[in-house]
Amino acid sequence: MSSEKKIIWRFGMDKTEGGKELAHILGNKGAQLCEMAKIGIPVPPGFIISTQACSEYMRQGEKYMKKLKPYVEEELSKLKNYISKIRKDKDFPLLLSVRSGAVVSMPGMMDTILNVGMTKSALEYLKKIDERFAYDTWRRFIQMFSSIALGVPKNIFEEEFERWKKAYEIYLNEGGFSDIEHAYNNLGNKFERSKLRDIDLPASVMKKISERFLDILKERGIDFPEDPLEQVMISIEAVFRSWNSERAIAYRRIHNISDDLGTAVNIVAMVFGNMGDDSGTGVLFTRNPNTGEKYLWGNFLPNAQGEDVVAGIRTPYAINEESKSSANKNFPTLKELMPDVYKELQKVSEKLESHYKEMQDIEFTIERRKLWILQTRTGKRTARAHLKITYDMIKEKKISEKEGIKRITPKHLSELLFPVVDEEKLKSEPIAKGIAASPGAVYGKVVFSPKEVEEMVRAGERVILVRHETSPEDIKGIAFAVGILTSRGGETSHAAVVARAMGKPAVVGAEDIFIDYENNLFKVKDIEVKKGDLITIDGNTGRVFLGSVPVKEADFPEEAVKILEIADKIRRLGVRANADTPEDARVARKFGAEGIGLLRTEHMFFKEERIPLVRKMIILARKYKQKFDEMRNIIQCLSEDGSPEMKKLLSGINMLRYFPKFQRGKSHEVVFREIEEKSKEDERLAKSFSEYTDVRKGFFNTLSKIKEWIKKDFKEIFSVMEGLPVTVRLIDPPLHEFLPKSPEEIKDTSEKSGIPESEIMEILEKLRETNPMLGHRGVRVGISYPEIYCMQVEAILEASSELIKSGKKVLPEIMLPNVIDPEEIKYFRNVIEMIQEDVEKEMKVKIPLSIGTMMEFPRACLLAGEIAKFVDFFSFGTNDLTQTTMGISRDDSGKFIDDYVPMILPYNPFSKLDVVGVGKIIKIALKEARDVKPRLKVGVCGEHGGDPDSISFFHSAGFDYISASPYRVSIARLSAAQAEIDVPSKKEKKDSYLHLKNKKSQREKRKGTKAVKNKKRVRKTSK
Amino acid sequence: MSSEKKIIWRFGMDKTEGGKELAHILGNKGAQLCEMAKIGIPVPPGFIISTQACSEYMRQGEKYMKKLKPYVEEELSKLKNYISKIRKDKDFPLLLSVRSGAVVSMPGMMDTILNVGMTKSALEYLKKIDERFAYDTWRRFIQMFSSIALGVPKNIFEEEFERWKKAYEIYLNEGGFSDIEHAYNNLGNKFERSKLRDIDLPASVMKKISERFLDILKERGIDFPEDPLEQVMISIEAVFRSWNSERAIAYRRIHNISDDLGTAVNIVAMVFGNMGDDSGTGVLFTRNPNTGEKYLWGNFLPNAQGEDVVAGIRTPYAINEESKSSANKNFPTLKELMPDVYKELQKVSEKLESHYKEMQDIEFTIERRKLWILQTRTGKRTARAHLKITYDMIKEKKISEKEGIKRITPKHLSELLFPVVDEEKLKSEPIAKGIAASPGAVYGKVVFSPKEVEEMVRAGERVILVRHETSPEDIKGIAFAVGILTSRGGETSHAAVVARAMGKPAVVGAEDIFIDYENNLFKVKDIEVKKGDLITIDGNTGRVFLGSVPVKEADFPEEAVKILEIADKIRRLGVRANADTPEDARVARKFGAEGIGLLRTEHMFFKEERIPLVRKMIILARKYKQKFDEMRNIIQCLSEDGSPEMKKLLSGINMLRYFPKFQRGKSHEVVFREIEEKSKEDERLAKSFSEYTDVRKGFFNTLSKIKEWIKKDFKEIFSVMEGLPVTVRLIDPPLHEFLPKSPEEIKDTSEKSGIPESEIMEILEKLRETNPMLGHRGVRVGISYPEIYCMQVEAILEASSELIKSGKKVLPEIMLPNVIDPEEIKYFRNVIEMIQEDVEKEMKVKIPLSIGTMMEFPRACLLAGEIAKFVDFFSFGTNDLTQTTMGISRDDSGKFIDDYVPMILPYNPFSKLDVVGVGKIIKIALKEARDVKPRLKVGVCGEHGGDPDSISFFHSAGFDYISASPYRVSIARLSAAQAEIDVPSKKEKKDSYLHLKNKKSQREKRKGTKAVKNKKRVRKTSK
Repeated sequence: MSSEKKIIWRFGMDKTEGGKELAHILGNKGAQLCEMAKIGIPVPPGFIISTQACSEYMRQGEKYMKKLKPYVEEELSKLKNYISKIRKDKDFPLLLSVRSGAVVSMPGMMDTILNVGMTKSALEYLKKIDERFAYDTWRRFIQMFSSIALGVPKNIFEEEFERWKKAYEIYLNEGGFSDIEHAYNNLGNKFERSKLRDIDLPASVMKKISERFLDILKERGIDFPEDPLEQVMISIEAVFRSWNSERAIAYRRIHNISDDLGTAVNIVAMVFGNMGDDSGTGVLFTRNPNTGEKYLWGNFLPNAQGEDVVAGIRTPYAINEESKSSANKNFPTLKELMPDVYKELQKVSEKLESHYKEMQDIEFTIERRKLWILQTRTGKRTARAHLKITYDMIKEKKISEKEGIKRITPKHLSELLFPVVDEEKLKSEPIAKGIAASPGAVYGKVVFSPKEVEEMVRAGERVILVRHETSPEDIKGIAFAVGILTSRGGETSHAAVVARAMGKPAVVGAEDIFIDYENNLFKVKDIEVKKGDLITIDGNTGRVFLGSVPVKEADFPEEAVKILEIADKIRRLGVRANADTPEDARVARKFGAEGIGLLRTEHMFFKEERIPLVRKMIILARKYKQKFDEMRNIIQCLSEDGSPEMKKLLSGINMLRYFPKFQRGKSHEVVFREIEEKSKEDERLAKSFSEYTDVRKGFFNTLSKIKEWIKKDFKEIFSVMEGLPVTVRLIDPPLHEFLPKSPEEIKDTSEKSGIPESEIMEILEKLRETNPMLGHRGVRVGISYPEIYCMQVEAILEASSELIKSGKKVLPEIMLPNVIDPEEIKYFRNVIEMIQEDVEKEMKVKIPLSIGTMMEFPRACLLAGEIAKFVDFFSFGTNDLTQTTMGISRDDSGKFIDDYVPMILPYNPFSKLDVVGVGKIIKIALKEARDVKPRLKVGVCGEHGGDPDSISFFHSAGFDYISASPYRVSIARLSAAQAEIDVPSKKEKKDSYLHLKNKKSQREKRKGTKAVKNKKRVRKTSK
Repeated sequence: MSSEKKIIWRFGMDKTEGGKELAHILGNKGAQLCEMAKIGIPVPPGFIISTQACSEYMRQGEKYMKKLKPYVEEELSKLKNYISKIRKDKDFPLLLSVRSGAVVSMPGMMDTILNVGMTKSALEYLKKIDERFAYDTWRRFIQMFSSIALGVPKNIFEEEFERWKKAYEIYLNEGGFSDIEHAYNNLGNKFERSKLRDIDLPASVMKKISERFLDILKERGIDFPEDPLEQVMISIEAVFRSWNSERAIAYRRIHNISDDLGTAVNIVAMVFGNMGDDSGTGVLFTRNPNTGEKYLWGNFLPNAQGEDVVAGIRTPYAINEESKSSANKNFPTLKELMPDVYKELQKVSEKLESHYKEMQDIEFTIERRKLWILQTRTGKRTARAHLKITYDMIKEKKISEKEGIKRITPKHLSELLFPVVDEEKLKSEPIAKGIAASPGAVYGKVVFSPKEVEEMVRAGERVILVRHETSPEDIKGIAFAVGILTSRGGETSHAAVVARAMGKPAVVGAEDIFIDYENNLFKVKDIEVKKGDLITIDGNTGRVFLGSVPVKEADFPEEAVKILEIADKIRRLGVRANADTPEDARVARKFGAEGIGLLRTEHMFFKEERIPLVRKMIILARKYKQKFDEMRNIIQCLSEDGSPEMKKLLSGINMLRYFPKFQRGKSHEVVFREIEEKSKEDERLAKSFSEYTDVRKGFFNTLSKIKEWIKKDFKEIFSVMEGLPVTVRLIDPPLHEFLPKSPEEIKDTSEKSGIPESEIMEILEKLRETNPMLGHRGVRVGISYPEIYCMQVEAILEASSELIKSGKKVLPEIMLPNVIDPEEIKYFRNVIEMIQEDVEKEMKVKIPLSIGTMMEFPRACLLAGEIAKFVDFFSFGTNDLTQTTMGISRDDSGKFIDDYVPMILPYNPFSKLDVVGVGKIIKIALKEARDVKPRLKVGVCGEHGGDPDSISFFHSAGFDYISASPYRVSIARLSAAQAEIDVPSKKEKKDSYLHLKNKKSQREKRKGTKAVKNKKRVRKTSK
């Protein structure tokens, strides 16, 4: 029988069939169970019914169940024999879990039934161990089986259970009732929820409830099956049917999962950790998840079931000395209590770690000194621990260097970059100490309500959320806060887990802190900290400080530095940084950047002492253009008589405007003389010319002053980056971004520039844009006001030439933003080269200048072949390219992106490059460009340049370099190496539409299966 | 000698060499001269020096001129012989025009010298004819030749001329001067411009000036060449040199014209119409340009030069009776004065019309009864005349049907659509009558200043510009006005010509009108019309009315109807209309639309009586979503304990939200019951659920009411379009567009909806968008608020089914806007089909429904293959696609588009599809889509659907249909036919970058030629 036709797969008994490679027919859960059993891990035995059986059931219905039954019967008897042998107890009932195991996860859609096999005789046996446990198990099974497999409405049992709980409460507290039944009968129709917990009910009450449940079934004409085999068969069929529940169908329809896949069914023997003091249950990590040190680390509870550990009612014991905490330092360890079991656990742990080549997080149960491994998975750990474990494993030769690099995620590195308290500068004492649950030192204002966090953050505050403890509904608040402080909970508390997952500093269990939610304050010792007060939490040490204390960037631990060196050996992609200031440039070099990929020059204009003059420049630029246009219009009118002389003049002044460098050279004098001549004959021209020259003077003076300022900036940055390329982007934002907005600013600008307020306001009104993103910005500003671009180019080239003259190596690259047409580039390339010629001649140096373009609009990508001819490099601005390709404004996307991700889009395209759409147009551009110019240098300077999955795309698309913010440079180095060794990107677009077949046929199929389903229902209720 | 090497090309003498096919070496001007001569038209004889000579000169310099000289000498002597024979006058001097003739037009860049050959002996001869004319010709020649060919600064002559003019004025007016020389010497350094015109100077003064000009040259060491051959050689060299003037180089650099092309030189004998009463000069059209009637139509001036006709100093005579106007009705005609010449003119006209197969506009000169044709070109005409001429020519078999269709431009048709005064409803009398200069009846407010026109139009007014007459500087004002009225000027006046060119109604020469610019009013009879008063002008009849009079659409003239029928036979592209109302739909059908390609449903919401409820719907939709999300969040939190029951509930409510039809069916009841159950245990859920159900009620009620309203609209439109497809686009604009903006509106909305003003303002604030174009709109609104989209779909399908039930044929097509991902379509296709199933079942009909998508974002184009799988049709929304592909907001493009067109972009991409960019992505989309679904229906519904060049693109790209506004439908029919017969689109992207070679090599070449240029200059000045 080929594996495709084999229906039942056994594991954990004498032999194990299947393994992780068969997940497509065994489901994930089943395949993993087989895998563990195969390598000799003591997993509870069982068998899997493959997905094909489910498909067959869809086709044949009830008939198929009959065919299946003898096989299941055989398996059950084998299983019973096997486990009886191990338990050395023939009478111990075989209880089973029957779980669905789909190939594709469909959370909450499919059914699971526990304790199958729980018959009256099983009950009798279990009662011997623990009566309450026995009845509770029975009651749960009846409830679960009846509602899932027999179709009895669930709420009937739940209400019944609640009534008994209430009755017991009344019986206990109010008195006057002979027994609980009396209290129950007395409840009548009045019904109130009880304050008791389930655990408060004694065995006797559980018994009553179980019996009552059976009565309910009887009343509905249902005999509860006492035959374990029948229970199992009904459970299997229920799991099969759950595949075609209306909801599951709708879920698949929404998520485009094929109806044909079907589910596997896992049938596993249940084992019990509550069989006495030689039993127990626990969890462990194969290495310390906080430090990465190599020893078993975990805890356990003797004589307990799994739920008890989770419920947190009892304090768990440590498994060994290394795992002890303040809470259990006085309890014995597993190693002491059951040294043989501990030894076996060590062996199993080593085996699992070696097999999975990863630190494992293992759940185990000990049933009467017999160790059972219920689950193993890769253990969660801190970033620092992960780096240590990975580097250690490379050294232990457990994994290769490449494998090691693959395992480091960017988050591991970025967490290490979380700031630490600067101990040298620290002067204050901590006011409290808790558990250092998630690394990083951070200050913020205290807020107690998760809801308020969002409000305050939106209002621009940094907020630390302070709670007794957090719960899932606080997630949003946690996401907005810069850090979390709780007074309760430990390292595995909700707050700790979530904060670590989000990479957010957290101190938990700071027990000295007394939080008073009502008065919005917390007290610690005699200090009162109110909402809005500033505190600092140190997630590295667990300290809490009042106010903000000095923090600094963490130094990379040894292991991180080593890992990045390995990455550098591997990667092909260059890594640059986006940096606008000398400070940024220094940080970038420190983190290993190989150049500046994006220097945004507008930041030079925004400096406080410069902005007034910059505003003046903008206002004059507009005026200058206006006066120029007036003059040109007059000359144009005059030239309409066809006089070649006037046509010449017209072309002359056009050239002055298009090549503004002419204006500052001598060329303008000739043309001006001609205009003067002509002015003698034409009054309007004379007037216009004189107005024009007036404005011209002021405008060019202003440009010169600003040029000197920014030249200094360029010299400084070029010096810091000596020997490395620096890509300077000419001014990009729309000019109105530089203008004053508030009345005070307008007044101030007016005073400083001498331009009337009314004029400034008029300009503001004229510059207002409906869609500024698609407006007058980037090279468009350059085309409208070439004087401003020329001034910037002069500053860059003069700065470069002066440094070159002084012996420094400077590699300037000038980049034009928002290009959509080769003509833009051709024009400015011309202009820039003219200026370059002049500067080189004047300074007698050669400037190794590159000229390139941003690629940020689809049209540029579509014309990339033509554009490539005129540039030395492309730099993709993926932010804007995403906005225009997708038609989504990043600023506005917040209004609907939550509705879109993940229902329509698999992720937010502004954090991770939209590979199928934006990526496709990038590929088109690269192909066109490289066809024309095979060695064209291509980089990216959008924020995606720091995103690992996007880097992987850029690598495979053939980019030369990426440019990220300075603090993302190390992550980029790592990601570039991972891209080289082909780590698949994590969240590529789900190719879900591949699953969806012709809808019509699907719908028909559904109708077909509905018949089977309905039939089942009839059978069920008539039973 | 092959034609490539032949340097001198003779024409109009005994033989003519070359023709229009040789424009690439003869230049355009030269090639046309040869062409005319070749077919026996009496053009003044001459010869052309080809562009190769220019190239040779660039290489060899002066040396080449020496080689060329004997050839030119030979040509001159032949020319002199030939023309002497014709003139029967050996002594008549041979004067020549020497003109540049580049292959690519470079207006004003290149030089022309007239009257070459003007020596002292020539002067003596010409003096015999007219002394003043002789000296004026001499003075002009010295001035032109010296400045262009000898390099003497032009202003020296101009100033000298002005001084003499002033001197003459003083001499005339002030007295006390012995002669003009006295007055001249007395001027000293004081210099003032004279009020005299050039024409006021008598021969004696012209003589003085000429002599003074020669003195000036002598003072500069320049002997003015007296040898005609030398004059010609120097002139030729000057034209050659002008190719490499700095400006010409810069011009070519800017316009990317290759430096290698060179210029040809046209040397043509000058002829004179001012040689007595048997001479003259004139212009004519071969058919009447206003009506299209077939007779010669033109006028002439006896004993005059060309300039005199243009100058408008004398009233020209008609050439025949048919051409007479009120101004010249009493003058004799050319036919009467010189019947033989008129007869020859008739023959020549017929020959030219037959040769060029087009009505011609001919310039002629008669020199002593000898007819010379100076120029012929296609004659401008009115639209109505053009249609008549074209249709007549088809009937005359001069051209084919296809050729006829090719010749009609959309403007011809659209001009015919200009409204006419509705004579039946007309009650008022005209206040004035002028010449009907440009067709169309239009009303507007009177404005006298062209500058104010723009202001008022921007402020939302319709304006008629009223002027004495207009001049080129008024162009902008004319462009903004809806019509032009002048009190002076005739059919060829500036106002008339420009208005016709712009297709704007104009009445000119309304002489009864007295305009008083100072007081901003005009008077006619005893009526005073002030600025801002309303008038109507009727450009069809020349009438002017006070106030606005009833106008109506013109009926297509017979010829237009016939031509469109021919077009329909030819075209393949379907033509639909964009229509939002039953009225639009009716117009569309009338003009021949084959369906509605775009029905914008938002217009149904904007109706005044509906908007309050629509606003309520929007506010409730947001509230509903919010309450729903709150409830879902609670359930999500509750389900985080992993309980499958809660997970099921979660998926249940998700489904209700995603498939809102469930909410109105029974499905919701089951889920609601489950929530109610769960609410018993969770207070927060109970509260949230009750809030949710409250909002739900109001929201769904509102939806139902609106549905009933819009269902009625759909029924009406579907009925009008019975049997034709109607593409309904679901709601597209962002929701904030429907909300009230002003405080009054907000108050009103609050009162009508019961929602507090503060809440409305809060919503407005929350909905505000930075880039609404890229914001929360189109299908994104549908995804966020599926309830609204579902309501629309229900209305469409219910309307359809009711009409089908009543026996009507309805073809609804539902279209989703702003799609970027196949998931959007898949989701809504699912939803729509669910609704369709229900409606069909309920109404027992089959609805022939198509589901399609707008293609308006690049990402949709890139994923077209995937998207195509789930739709029946694509409709390209080229407006938005242009905005996003080019990154240009149409609303904001006005801020810089003038700087871009034509310097960077050849045309405004919002009026004509950007074929190289947007067109490319459309082609990519079509390829991807048709690979998947070869028969996918593809149309366009952006405004480009009405633009002929764009239609040509859509045709060649393989579109199935275009959709234009109802009034553009006839133009679309024509353009579609033209596309089929492959009329090349007129303004495709200039492929200028193809010209630009490697820039470096170009620059070097320029440097090389500079040497030659400098050398020349040296030679010249040393002479």
